[in-house]
Order: sequence, then structure tokens, then C-alpha cells
Amino acid sequence: MKLILASTSTIYGGKSLSYLQAELTELYKNVTEVLFIPYARPGGISHQEYTNNLKPVFAEIGINLKGIHEFENPIEAIEKSSGIFTGGGNTFVLLYQLYKNELILPLQKAIKNGTPYLGTSAGSNICGLTINTTNDMPIVYPPSFKALSIVPFNLNPHYIDPEPNSKHMGETRETRIKEFHAYHTQPVIGLREGSWLEINSDDCMLKGSLSARVFESNKAPYEIDTNTNLNYLK
Amino acid sequence: MKLILASTSTIYGGKSLSYLQAELTELYKNVTEVLFIPYARPGGISHQEYTNNLKPVFAEIGINLKGIHEFENPIEAIEKSSGIFTGGGNTFVLLYQLYKNELILPLQKAIKNGTPYLGTSAGSNICGLTINTTNDMPIVYPPSFKALSIVPFNLNPHYIDPEPNSKHMGETRETRIKEFHAYHTQPVIGLREGSWLEINSDDCMLKGSLSARVFESNKAPYEIDTNTNLNYLK
Repeated sequence: MKLILASTSTIYGGKSLSYLQAELTELYKNVTEVLFIPYARPGGISHQEYTNNLKPVFAEIGINLKGIHEFENPIEAIEKSSGIFTGGGNTFVLLYQLYKNELILPLQKAIKNGTPYLGTSAGSNICGLTINTTNDMPIVYPPSFKALSIVPFNLNPHYIDPEPNSKHMGETRETRIKEFHAYHTQPVIGLREGSWLEINSDDCMLKGSLSARVFESNKAPYEIDTNTNLNYLK
Repeated sequence: MKLILASTSTIYGGKSLSYLQAELTELYKNVTEVLFIPYARPGGISHQEYTNNLKPVFAEIGINLKGIHEFENPIEAIEKSSGIFTGGGNTFVLLYQLYKNELILPLQKAIKNGTPYLGTSAGSNICGLTINTTNDMPIVYPPSFKALSIVPFNLNPHYIDPEPNSKHMGETRETRIKEFHAYHTQPVIGLREGSWLEINSDDCMLKGSLSARVFESNKAPYEIDTNTNLNYLK
């Protein structure tokens, strides 16, 4: 397997994916066309708009980006692709559409067979065990919260630390994940913006300049430094 | 019908429900025992802990608060109650438990028959058409997102305005609700902390000192002042 699971497509002040350009060049080495899965529809934009927005970013590294919605048979599109990118947006919308188009198994198979995969935000979320730890609004009802289970834990992208001066009474991210562990035992990785997981064969490493926050059931949350190997999490 | 649907139980710097004490005295006039639905389990605490935390607040206004989990038959508990309060926490957990215990119809019936009802946060959310506009983390998978449909719109409690100086790339609340309207047509009321809806028979009014933000499908979002009647929203 060869994956990059990023917390966000864009870091503050940067252009889409620019902070990952070197990694993408390496991930998609020898790949000339990447299949884009635009189902998460950020801001409700159309699949084609979303694809068009990202085409120039991939053109810069010599790659043609083609939306899965442009293919008559999306299952075949995945089976034949030599590289896949699932963009961010709404995780519920994304997972709903993957189930609707019967793409869960084909995607799992392609990724496990070594097709290089990039996920950002929602596109990373779906590589966890379930989407129970997404931050997104549940604007559609998917047939299940079960996800691709490429990694043996859940992700929480755009992880944000409690704001010490906040007067807002909504739950902090940490509280929400603690509530999750009242019902489930799998670990959750809080990936801050600018962090990503790099998966090479069976190795899963934290990358980027920041630490990540790990939530294990019945343990106090803790930080792991960049370049930590996450294979110990089962 | 007689309801108070509050954005939050607690406003910054205050004690639980203290800002609503006068309204609760009025809502529960002549009621000596209120049935508490603690299913939303904030922070994952137990039903009994949650009930114990709130008992003193109700004792102050001469009301005995009794948790629905203390009854052998929760359907009967609702049917026989002379006042109901559903507390905040996780909306998915709350709705899951209501479906599991087959309480959706009994609750609708009790509220429509005039049993006074207080909801805070998740307890307000469930009185909308669906829980598609909750801010909560989807830590459990309910059999449906359909809610009690007491009001003909959706709620977004703890509504928070975009933070102009934020460097965080996660979606703003307004963006999330815009995404919701890519799939649904019902209005959404963004209820700020300290605001509540007061429903008396067929009248639904915004109360508290703040304005609320209304999101209607295919319209620019707009503010409504406190004391606005919301009956125009269908």
C-alpha cells in the first residue's frame, strides 16, 4: 500500500496541496493520470466544478486529473486507475455516494493492491475504520458509518486544541472524542492541519512539522512527534 | 403545545439553566415532578450522574427531577409525566436511544397533547424535522436522522459566527448549513447561546437577548430579532 492521508488540502495562507507537492510527486511517480473522487462536494459545489478547481494543481506536476463522475462505469474507473485522490468536503456525502455507487470494495481492493492513494480531510477520514469521528455535519444519512478500514483506527482531521479563552459552550474536540470512547474502543488520531499519515506497505508514519494527538480507549490522550511510526496502534 | 427549546443549558460564566429560571417556573407551573431524559450523556457520563447533576437546579424551583432510566417502562413514564426535560449532550446518542426504546411516538404525542417540554441543545435539536444540522460528532449510528418534527424546520444550537481571524481551515457553521441546503429544503434556525424558542400553542417566538440567524433554501441567510414570531417558516 502507498497512501498519504492528510488532515487538510490547504494550510492557512497556502494554495491547495502546495505544502504536499514534493510528497505527491513521489506518491504518483510514473503516474500520468489520477482518478479524482469529488463526491464530498465542499460547499455543495458540483463534481465537475470541484474537479476543475484541482486540475491545475495536478497539471503542475505533470498529471492529468480526471473526475470519477466522467466515467460511465465508476467501478471500472477505480479498477483501471493508476492513482487515486479523494478530496475533502463532507464525509457523510462522500461515504453515502461511495455506498450508492458500490465503490467500497473496489476502493479497498485497489488501495490494498498498491494503487497510490491521496486523501485530504474527508478523503482521509474514509480510510479509517468508521466515520464516527468526523467533524462534519450529517447532512445526508449514509447506509452505514463503516468506512474503508485501511488503517486500524479512526481519524479526526482538522484536529484543533481547546481554545483556552473561549466563551462558547459547545464541546471541545477532545470532549467529543472522549464521548466516542464511551461507545467504541478503537484509537483515534487527531491530525492537525499540516500533518499527514504516510503509509508505505505496512508502515504508517506521522509526517509534517506538527505533533498529533492520540486518543486510546481508557488512556489519557497523548502527543506523538512527527516521524513516529503508528504500527503499535491496533 | 408548550415548549422551550434552548440553544444551550448554560451560558458562559453562569450556572446550569440559571438564565432560564423565570421561564422554567412559568413553563412548569403547577408541575411538581419533571421527567428527565438524560440519554444524550454529555461527556459520556451515566444517566444517573447526569440526573443527579441537575436535580438541585430543579429543586430550587420546587420540582423533583426524575430520570427516565429510573422507570421500568419508559413509554409509560412519558405518558404519565406532567412535564418533560431533555438535556444536551450528543444528539446521535440521544436519538439512537429514543428509537431503541420506541419513544419517538410517545414523546410526539405527549408534547402535542400539551405536556410542557424543555429541551437544551441536543434536547432542542430533536424537536426539529431531522438531526441533519447538529454540530455533534456521530459517535453512534441511529436508525434514522428523522426527529420529532415538533417545529417545521431544523435547528442548529450553539450557533457561532465565522471567526474573522481564524487560521483554521475547517468549515464555518454557515458553510456547513449551506452544504445542508444542497440536499434539503427545510429552513434552519441558527440559535446562538442564550437564545431560545418559546412555543405556545401554535406560536413559535425567538426569545433571549440575541438575534438568530435563519437559513432558508435558495436565499441569503438573514438575522431575526428577539421576539420575532417564526410561524412564517414552513
